[in-house]
Amino acid sequence: MTRKGYRVIAEFSIHPLGEGTSVSRYIRRALTELKKAKGLRLQVTPMATVIEAEKLSDILSAVKAAHESLFRMGAKRVDFVLRIDDRRDKQRRMEDKVRAVT
Amino acid sequence: MTRKGYRVIAEFSIHPLGEGTSVSRYIRRALTELKKAKGLRLQVTPMATVIEAEKLSDILSAVKAAHESLFRMGAKRVDFVLRIDDRRDKQRRMEDKVRAVT
Amino acid sequence: MTRKGYRVIAEFSIHPLGEGTSVSRYIRRALTELKKAKGLRLQVTPMATVIEAEKLSDILSAVKAAHESLFRMGAKRVDFVLRIDDRRDKQRRMEDKVRAVT
Amino acid sequence: MTRKGYRVIAEFSIHPLGEGTSVSRYIRRALTELKKAKGLRLQVTPMATVIEAEKLSDILSAVKAAHESLFRMGAKRVDFVLRIDDRRDKQRRMEDKVRAVT
Repeated sequence: MTRKGYRVIAEFSIHPLGEGTSVSRYIRRALTELKKAKGLRLQVTPMATVIEAEKLSDILSAVKAAHESLFRMGAKRVDFVLRIDDRRDKQRRMEDKVRAVT
Repeated sequence: MTRKGYRVIAEFSIHPLGEGTSVSRYIRRALTELKKAKGLRLQVTPMATVIEAEKLSDILSAVKAAHESLFRMGAKRVDFVLRIDDRRDKQRRMEDKVRAVT
Repeated sequence: MTRKGYRVIAEFSIHPLGEGTSVSRYIRRALTELKKAKGLRLQVTPMATVIEAEKLSDILSAVKAAHESLFRMGAKRVDFVLRIDDRRDKQRRMEDKVRAVT
Repeated sequence: MTRKGYRVIAEFSIHPLGEGTSVSRYIRRALTELKKAKGLRLQVTPMATVIEAEKLSDILSAVKAAHESLFRMGAKRVDFVLRIDDRRDKQRRMEDKVRAVT
C-alpha cells in the first residue's frame, strides 16, 4: 500500500528488567540502533523516543534491532512499549502534531 | 538469534479514530488477521489481545497485517499499542505468567 | 458527574526495575492491594490486570495503593502503565467488550 | 510516604473515540486542565505530554480533571494511557532523564 507523503508517527520505550535500577546505558544502546536505521526521524523525550517514518515496516525493523541489541549486552528480559499513530487523510510531521495542540 | 524454546509474550490493542464510538467491527477484523498468522497463540481480553509467539518478528508481521486491514476497511487514522515481554533466561508460556501471580 | 450504570474499564501493568529478572512477588502484592479496594472487578491476564469500576477515581486510588506497596517491599524504582477506556453512551461490562469482538 | 526531593515522571496520552479523525481541540482542552493543576511541570511531545510532579497523587488528580473535561466537551468515549516512572533512590528531573541517554 503506497501512502504518498503520509508519515507514521510512533513512540517507543524500552528497558531490561533485573539489570539494576539505572538502565540508561541500555537506552543509549537502543538509541544507537534506532539511529542506524535509514529514514527515521527521532526525538528523545524524558519517557520515550518519538519516531517518524515513511512506513510502519521501517519503524518495526528499527525497534526489533534495538530490542535484540539489549540481549547482546547481556539482558535476560526486555520489555518495550510501542505506540503507533498512523494517519492517511492528511500529511503531517512530528512538529505538526505539537503545533496543533499548543 | 535462536532462542530454544523461549517464547515472546505480547499485548496488542488497536482502534481507528473517527470511525464512530463503537469500534468492535474493526477489532474483529484485526483479530481475523492475527488468526491468519502462523504459530501465534492468542487470548482476547477486555482491553487487548495477548499474543504468544516463538519470535518477535512473527508478532510484528501479524500486527502489521492487522494494522493495514483497518485502512482497507476505510479507516483514515489507526492507533495501536504493542507491549512486549521477552524473557530468555526461562521458558514460559502465557499461562505460566498468570499462574505465577495468582 | 454522575454516570448511571456506566462502568470504566481499565488495564494496569506494574513492575519494579532493578529487583531481579522475576518480579512475580511484586505483582502478587500489587494484586493484593487491588483486591482490598471496594467495588472493583479484576481479571488477571498474562500481561496486565483488567479492572472494571463504577468511577475512574476508584481505579486511581487502587492503582496508587498498589504502586506504594511495591516501595514498601523495598523497590527503589517502580514503573506502571494504566490504560483507561471510559464509555458513557452505553452500559457495558468487561465481558461485553470481549463478546463484541469474538 | 514522604519522598524528599524525589519527583515522579509520567507520560499521558488521551483522545476521544468517535469525534472525528482530528482530535486536537480535545488535546488542547486536556492540556488546559493539566496546566491548571498546581506544581506540575509539563512537556508536550508529538505523542503525549510528559508530566513531572512531586507526588503521584498530583498527577492522578490532574489526569482525572483532563479526562472529565473531554466528556464536558461532548465526547461519549474517552481513552487514555498513563505511564509512570517513579524512582526514589535518586533525585532527578525530566531533563536528567534525557541527558542520561543522549
